[in-house]
Amino acid sequence: MEVISALLPKPSRDVLTGIGDDCAVIRPRHGTDLRLLKTDALVEGIHFAPGTLPERVGWKALCRPLSDIAAMGGTPLHAIITVAAPAGWTTATWKGLYRGIGKAARAHGVSVVGGETVRSPGPAFLSVSLTGAVPKNRLKLRSGAKTGDLICVTGRLGGSLRSGRHLRFSPRLEEGQWLGNRKGVTAMMDLSDGLGNDLPKLAEESGCSFRIDPDSLPRHRGCTVTEALADGEDYELLLTVSPKAWPSLMKRWDTRFPRTPLTCIGRMTRRDLPPTPLPSGYDHLRPTKS
Amino acid sequence: MEVISALLPKPSRDVLTGIGDDCAVIRPRHGTDLRLLKTDALVEGIHFAPGTLPERVGWKALCRPLSDIAAMGGTPLHAIITVAAPAGWTTATWKGLYRGIGKAARAHGVSVVGGETVRSPGPAFLSVSLTGAVPKNRLKLRSGAKTGDLICVTGRLGGSLRSGRHLRFSPRLEEGQWLGNRKGVTAMMDLSDGLGNDLPKLAEESGCSFRIDPDSLPRHRGCTVTEALADGEDYELLLTVSPKAWPSLMKRWDTRFPRTPLTCIGRMTRRDLPPTPLPSGYDHLRPTKS
Repeated sequence: MEVISALLPKPSRDVLTGIGDDCAVIRPRHGTDLRLLKTDALVEGIHFAPGTLPERVGWKALCRPLSDIAAMGGTPLHAIITVAAPAGWTTATWKGLYRGIGKAARAHGVSVVGGETVRSPGPAFLSVSLTGAVPKNRLKLRSGAKTGDLICVTGRLGGSLRSGRHLRFSPRLEEGQWLGNRKGVTAMMDLSDGLGNDLPKLAEESGCSFRIDPDSLPRHRGCTVTEALADGEDYELLLTVSPKAWPSLMKRWDTRFPRTPLTCIGRMTRRDLPPTPLPSGYDHLRPTKS
Repeated sequence: MEVISALLPKPSRDVLTGIGDDCAVIRPRHGTDLRLLKTDALVEGIHFAPGTLPERVGWKALCRPLSDIAAMGGTPLHAIITVAAPAGWTTATWKGLYRGIGKAARAHGVSVVGGETVRSPGPAFLSVSLTGAVPKNRLKLRSGAKTGDLICVTGRLGGSLRSGRHLRFSPRLEEGQWLGNRKGVTAMMDLSDGLGNDLPKLAEESGCSFRIDPDSLPRHRGCTVTEALADGEDYELLLTVSPKAWPSLMKRWDTRFPRTPLTCIGRMTRRDLPPTPLPSGYDHLRPTKS
């Protein structure tokens, strides 16, 4: 909210990107790696249904901000986790939750270095803050796309809530780092709110418009085009690629990640051209479906 | 909870202090300053009463973790803030909240670099994550106290909830940095849960016991000794000082901070001696009084 930014002090000069990208990016006084900072919250009844296996909740709580680190080309480092728990939580609930967090931390090389547990008089609430690092030349922002760049997505879209995929996805960290190392990749973000919501944000940050072919979207089995555009919680990467770099990048991608499609779905256009109309059905605030 | 630590992967070698001190302490690959990481949550109905001025809530939300940075001798850098808001929040509520956050950020040199707002189906929930830095030789931990060290507190204790002080205190950042630069200061922590709860934690981390004279506690006007020990939310600094360093330290403190008392209240003793019995009435999970 712009109203809010006006109430906050001007960020210090070491802040390269603050509010408005997947992560905040900070230039350290020493060394060449940039620092990444991200926070992400899960609310019971919004991001997971009451009764969801605690282990799944823990996994998702850590993997969501990991997906943002992935979208910058970054490597995750340290996590701090706050849990506000309803009075009814048993030792088994806590253990399940931290088993899921621990699994995700081990899988992705994250050190959990602190946190806090408090009582919630309402639903459960989890907040995860993550630090990460990215070499300067590997950083990808939302703002780097140019008119004419190709628009691509990793994996397949749609049906995440219905299938439960939102509770067991793996953040695209390796893919993000690999793509970060490719000069031809001009912008990147993660798909959490659905392509119909997220692509306009990337275009806005880059000062472009876009045309996509909705029929070309890589969809999960049984998903309609609308679902692929609007369901959200895909946790795939959305990126733009200079057309020159695309043929070689695609070939190398297929060798490196043979089981994950990288699909070209459209092209960035001049700002003054109308974008492809997209359904943006995803509502961050709606009750979750599963 | 030890049960939880066992479920998490072993922290990486750059983690000097993880769960168990005021902040996590991380050794960066480059430079000499250590990095500090802290998260802190406020829950409506626990840490502030429904109906509290949003500006006060915002101030407190940022100042609480700042107090933890102060307790390490650190300098705060960047904050990310998550707010889960009930449906009833108006633009005025949001503005008030961020006005308070902005004031605290300006007063203490913090850059707010990101965050997230989501809907809460229950009470309001705020989570603030802070980074900070501290030169290696200025870092103070809870674990550095030695048998024979004097136990000291800054300011006055007691009555914070009743007087509303918990909503408008200033974290002791300057004092913490100044004390961090004194070699004679052997351990430090902030007083958030009440001396009766916090001193035993410092003693435990240092492998010591303690004797204090409860009547010597610097109290706020109208507070009993029990309130000074057990009310909590003082956000003062608790520190231990080598007896040799005390006379000169006290003199220099009085010159530097003439309006804030630094009071010696007791002494660290051998681990096998019984500690002074203290009331630990503060319950992190109780509903707040004001």
